[in-house]
Amino acid sequence: MNNRIEKLARKSLSFISPYVPGKPVEQLFREKGLSKIIKLASNENPLGASPYAVKAIKNKAQTVNRYPEGDAFALKGKLSHLLGIDGRQIVIGSGSSEIISMTVQAFCEPGDEIVFAWPSFIIYKILAHAFGAKPVEVGLNADFTYNLDSYLEKISKKTKLVILCNPNNPTGSHVKKHELRRFIRNIPENVIALFDEAYFEYAEDPDFGSAFQWLGKGNVIIARTFSKIYGLAGLRIGYGIASKDIIRILEKIRPPFNTTILAQEAAIAALDDRNFVRKSIQHNKKEKKYLSENLKKLGFTVFQSQANFLFCQTEKNAAEICQKLEENGIIVRPMTGFGLKENFIRITVGKSSENRLLIKQLEKIC
Amino acid sequence: MNNRIEKLARKSLSFISPYVPGKPVEQLFREKGLSKIIKLASNENPLGASPYAVKAIKNKAQTVNRYPEGDAFALKGKLSHLLGIDGRQIVIGSGSSEIISMTVQAFCEPGDEIVFAWPSFIIYKILAHAFGAKPVEVGLNADFTYNLDSYLEKISKKTKLVILCNPNNPTGSHVKKHELRRFIRNIPENVIALFDEAYFEYAEDPDFGSAFQWLGKGNVIIARTFSKIYGLAGLRIGYGIASKDIIRILEKIRPPFNTTILAQEAAIAALDDRNFVRKSIQHNKKEKKYLSENLKKLGFTVFQSQANFLFCQTEKNAAEICQKLEENGIIVRPMTGFGLKENFIRITVGKSSENRLLIKQLEKIC
Repeated sequence: MNNRIEKLARKSLSFISPYVPGKPVEQLFREKGLSKIIKLASNENPLGASPYAVKAIKNKAQTVNRYPEGDAFALKGKLSHLLGIDGRQIVIGSGSSEIISMTVQAFCEPGDEIVFAWPSFIIYKILAHAFGAKPVEVGLNADFTYNLDSYLEKISKKTKLVILCNPNNPTGSHVKKHELRRFIRNIPENVIALFDEAYFEYAEDPDFGSAFQWLGKGNVIIARTFSKIYGLAGLRIGYGIASKDIIRILEKIRPPFNTTILAQEAAIAALDDRNFVRKSIQHNKKEKKYLSENLKKLGFTVFQSQANFLFCQTEKNAAEICQKLEENGIIVRPMTGFGLKENFIRITVGKSSENRLLIKQLEKIC
Repeated sequence: MNNRIEKLARKSLSFISPYVPGKPVEQLFREKGLSKIIKLASNENPLGASPYAVKAIKNKAQTVNRYPEGDAFALKGKLSHLLGIDGRQIVIGSGSSEIISMTVQAFCEPGDEIVFAWPSFIIYKILAHAFGAKPVEVGLNADFTYNLDSYLEKISKKTKLVILCNPNNPTGSHVKKHELRRFIRNIPENVIALFDEAYFEYAEDPDFGSAFQWLGKGNVIIARTFSKIYGLAGLRIGYGIASKDIIRILEKIRPPFNTTILAQEAAIAALDDRNFVRKSIQHNKKEKKYLSENLKKLGFTVFQSQANFLFCQTEKNAAEICQKLEENGIIVRPMTGFGLKENFIRITVGKSSENRLLIKQLEKIC
């Protein structure tokens, strides 16, 4: 590293290790030259993209010489109608991750603390460093469920933001309605409470607690995405909902054209595709059960998940298992990147055929 | 405004007025119900998107359930080959504006100064405030050409970043090779020099000075875009080129998935579409000449432009002219948002028929 340039960079950047995503199919193809590759590493929708969305993309392909409407007027209108809230309570982001990023940028100055669970979505820690704030991690219980009391205990006078991922990535654990009520009521008014609900559509527990009914609290922000249930991860589009006061501040730092024409149009179409959402939920439920049962038979400890992935523990070396799977064209996610020991794996629920192939390969390996 | 929430936001955000883009066609349609609208307000390519790119979008529409390759491996490879530089000297952004934004975020801490011209691209000032840095504006000459000496005079011990837009938006003015040489040589080593070359492909002056040959200086960053000559504004994709040391730092804060699958694929295809680029350049040259001559006949002062737009001054009230044009379905860009007096307008070179219609309308109005 050239010291001269490094010295010019923001001090807090030295703490950042760039995010390592699930290995892309193209990369494994380049590395091993395999022709058939199955990716169960990034919690994508195995049924593809919403067909309505695909049609919208093709219809609008000719129009991309024009800038998008910066504030995604039509998409906000659609969401406002569906959610029954004011359009001024909605901000559109380049994936839900940009909603999280804008929140950190808008509210956290150097010295401020951001409280979040660990393991949880790695981006929280990266963003804290990227904007010079201090990450404060809260451990999960031994069974990887949330301990909301220890969360609340970590809130100090320096805390500016609390982030709760519900259902949690990578563990699949969730917070119930009554737990959420107590949690939100105990967060001080001068602390922003961000709820990352990227996976909420998959939650099966009727007692799952979305922060949606707590929007009236004023300091609550919810980040949601079109990347999962709607199958639009490749288009980078998500949304944030909050009080009008919060949205007004986020709009100040939202990049003027942060989502593409095609993403906006695809998201609008996908919201109408109720059949695709229903099918995706049913598929996930059935196949998650299949995977869970068969992984347990193979000796894995499988934690209860309300999302479209399973968090598994093995007595063996998980890195080796992942390595062997990759050699056979199956990509899953080792959890060392999440700061966990070498015996955890996160597996995305795939197509029926993919899940069966995974179990078959694991039978050989284990 | 709810004082409680406002007080929680970063102090420097209070200086930000959100960016006001060229009025979208959809917005004018909503406001006036006009059926035929011509937009000459956002420097988009009037010939549409590269046909190769449109085809690539349609071909890849089905794949958007997958995350993009975060680092745009294939697109970087293509650019690296075309530019004859190492792939590690390239970073891909959500438009060139994200390259600029990442540069500010990576290098500027509260208290640091950012020197740029005024009027120039408004985003520079917004970004300075968004990241808590101090914007330092350099006036242009009376004919809106650059005064590089006064630029250099504004560099202080607190200066972390100098931004030069070349050709300049909104004035169309440019810097020649020998001027650039002297400028770059006089920028201290511990100051990052960012050159915004969004419009460089349109430059007709053979003596136009791109910063490309100065990459070896180490502190130079060039931001370029697919939004203009390639006609992909709606897809949000651009690139930055710099020393490997700078790119390594920008990669630390680049959002993990900052461009879409479709944008990456369209950009790769567009780079092969040499015919479209050639046609776009020829069209721009011919039509800019037509517009310039006819605007002068109508009494406008038209400044020399190396880009795909014209910066014009009128004796009359520009806001009124813009208003009357809008009533007739033509959107141009009044320059009050750029902090200029009420007698300046920026007009994007449109299709031949659009340019003729504009002149016809102006003949009626003026």
